[in-house]
Amino acid sequence: MGYKGSSENFLNKSDVSIGDTVLIEKNDVSYEGILLDRSEDADDGCIVLKLDSGYNIGVNINNATIGLIEKGDKPKISYKPVNIEYDDKKLDISIISTGGTVSSIIDYKTGAVHPVFTAEDLLRSNPELLDLANIDVKALYNILSENMKPEYWVNSAKSIADEVTSGADGVVVAHGTDTMHFTSAALSFMIKSPVPIVVTGAQRSSDRPSSDAHLNLINSVGAAKSEIAEVTVCMHSTLNDDYCDLHRGTKVRKMHTSRRDTFRSIDFEPLANVKEGKVSYLLNDFKKRNQEDLVLNNKIEEKVAIVKTYPGISSEIINYHIDKGYKGLLIEGTGLGHLPENLLDSIKRANQEEIAIVMTSQCIYGRVNMNVYSTGRKLLNAGIISGKDMIPEVAFVKLAWALGQSSNIEEVKNIIQTNLAGELNEKSSTKYFLN
Amino acid sequence: MGYKGSSENFLNKSDVSIGDTVLIEKNDVSYEGILLDRSEDADDGCIVLKLDSGYNIGVNINNATIGLIEKGDKPKISYKPVNIEYDDKKLDISIISTGGTVSSIIDYKTGAVHPVFTAEDLLRSNPELLDLANIDVKALYNILSENMKPEYWVNSAKSIADEVTSGADGVVVAHGTDTMHFTSAALSFMIKSPVPIVVTGAQRSSDRPSSDAHLNLINSVGAAKSEIAEVTVCMHSTLNDDYCDLHRGTKVRKMHTSRRDTFRSIDFEPLANVKEGKVSYLLNDFKKRNQEDLVLNNKIEEKVAIVKTYPGISSEIINYHIDKGYKGLLIEGTGLGHLPENLLDSIKRANQEEIAIVMTSQCIYGRVNMNVYSTGRKLLNAGIISGKDMIPEVAFVKLAWALGQSSNIEEVKNIIQTNLAGELNEKSSTKYFLN
Repeated sequence: MGYKGSSENFLNKSDVSIGDTVLIEKNDVSYEGILLDRSEDADDGCIVLKLDSGYNIGVNINNATIGLIEKGDKPKISYKPVNIEYDDKKLDISIISTGGTVSSIIDYKTGAVHPVFTAEDLLRSNPELLDLANIDVKALYNILSENMKPEYWVNSAKSIADEVTSGADGVVVAHGTDTMHFTSAALSFMIKSPVPIVVTGAQRSSDRPSSDAHLNLINSVGAAKSEIAEVTVCMHSTLNDDYCDLHRGTKVRKMHTSRRDTFRSIDFEPLANVKEGKVSYLLNDFKKRNQEDLVLNNKIEEKVAIVKTYPGISSEIINYHIDKGYKGLLIEGTGLGHLPENLLDSIKRANQEEIAIVMTSQCIYGRVNMNVYSTGRKLLNAGIISGKDMIPEVAFVKLAWALGQSSNIEEVKNIIQTNLAGELNEKSSTKYFLN
Repeated sequence: MGYKGSSENFLNKSDVSIGDTVLIEKNDVSYEGILLDRSEDADDGCIVLKLDSGYNIGVNINNATIGLIEKGDKPKISYKPVNIEYDDKKLDISIISTGGTVSSIIDYKTGAVHPVFTAEDLLRSNPELLDLANIDVKALYNILSENMKPEYWVNSAKSIADEVTSGADGVVVAHGTDTMHFTSAALSFMIKSPVPIVVTGAQRSSDRPSSDAHLNLINSVGAAKSEIAEVTVCMHSTLNDDYCDLHRGTKVRKMHTSRRDTFRSIDFEPLANVKEGKVSYLLNDFKKRNQEDLVLNNKIEEKVAIVKTYPGISSEIINYHIDKGYKGLLIEGTGLGHLPENLLDSIKRANQEEIAIVMTSQCIYGRVNMNVYSTGRKLLNAGIISGKDMIPEVAFVKLAWALGQSSNIEEVKNIIQTNLAGELNEKSSTKYFLN
């Protein structure tokens, strides 16, 4: 056991063991859950429970009592070996794991989260993947996606390109959900591919009954076998465990902190649905398999920042980024693409110093149009670049990528305003609002 | 005419007049619209058209030709005087104008936008308001809402309180839409009121056939007569010109750059619908008319900033705000309330220096829960305050207000985490996602 000191004594005096369902009562509150072991030696007076909601909590044992509800089940994850045999009638799909909930296996016996480091680990919990394709798993990173950085996008793009060069018929990228849409946008700009590149993840870990890891993985492998040779995001479509939406990588956003159907196409519709690994195409306007040769262009400028405006914002924040040597600023303005007029002089200064400034809207939906009101026209005159219908996160990634392609401000402006990967659409239909 | 120089010559050589529908052809592009006058003398070689979409554009006359499509109509806005007679059987509703599209009248003859400065101006274009109530109009500001500042919230709250003290049975605040939800949140925290306070605006100016100004004003006066003595936002409910939603002022957000039904209750439902000035209550859980006495508490701390995180963000941006004397930081983190681990030391430093840091999620929908993953628990240990289910903009306003109430960090933390105006709900129903 990882429990030490007072918590070890507390457990030793009770009749419960690791893995049992227990009740802890403390003051007026009671907690029911599975008693987990500690993954490292801990002498902090806390007991860790896995609640029915799937979340782990630590309960301080001060004034607490513990009782047994039910002896522990066997671990839900099977450790029987899987038999991986190459089947030359099946497509070859590579899975690149970068970390996040989808790439983790939680051991009920210990409560520890194990990253997936081998094909065997992942295939043991998802053996159905082998019915769909020959699967090769590469563990590139094991990081939570809030810690994703532009340099990891660069390396991920390289790894994907290597898989394609090595003959993969499709690539699945397992990723944390927090910044998945930043990464899918980055990969969209960095890679032109003859085969599908599908980014997926999970909102609930694979030990939970409500986990979406399994369905998302199955359907991502299905999508990676499809005709859609773009970077897409494949995630739960509804609250039911029935199918996934396949979103264009530049038109998708995480819109809910916890729902499994959190990823939504913004001002656009999903390219396809995927059910039990089978793809139903919803649109025909996508890059087809083998339409393009592989091109990797993963240079990026890291000195790019997001500034969200708010009432009372000081122009000093713009000057700060100029003084710190930032090459690009992504502004999340208000409404049609406005910002407080007190920022205008700093924007002009940035323009004079050849810093690229792109305007998007914190509304999320819709498009910036800086020709409607005088504020917008002043900003255009000050050299600000319209992000049109790009969501802020995609415009941020594109700005960093564009500055990696050129240091000439006019060329950067041209790249920003040219549709490269479905990120810009001349017309937005209102029907996709809040879909 | 405001046209001078080359553009005046260009127009004089044609057969068109101000107010006519004209066609300008230039290179491969043609523009059809109503020829507007310039509001100030302009010699910039540009002609201004009002397009059918309602937007004004400037077209440079280089290589351009202009032709008449149809002679101009009469101005759509009537200038006949309105007869305002006090009717003591009706309620007294005060309209406070702060600016924005809703408070403007556009003159078709000149294309100039006139702010509403008198009751006559506003009632001339919306005479039906007089059927609903005795209307008193005060012009407090005439600013676009992207230029709203915390000090204007303070003054607006004071003006509203003055109207209530003077006997108003309800107050309507006319406001630009860009930052309307920041203002409705600020007023929600600053005023406890025995009568309704309804914030409204328009996405399309009142000269356009699709303008929402009229419907929103009528229904806002209706809402101001209702039993809901809270700060609410009253705006178009759908794309049809049929009714408005009445949103709680702390649970609403502008979600589309241009749609008239852009304002949406987030993780909540509208309190009521309003049609033709008549209120249909959807919930019963609101503060009733005369339930509370008037309390004005409009102190606010202006040294508060929003920082949205993104892949590659430097910890220097946190240190910058600490060094500049900010008292509070509102973080828009990712997912359940995470930020990149490289920011952790700066967060700890902020906490040591008694700067209040509140976590919200850029997902917009859902609630932060920092107990699920290790990242979140580290942040809680570093002293960060959970914004729970507050949207980032509301949490920002509440933080500024809380710091105006107390400089004690524990008291501020307590204020942030206590529901004061419906901004915090212990449970969020999933059914309100993307409503």
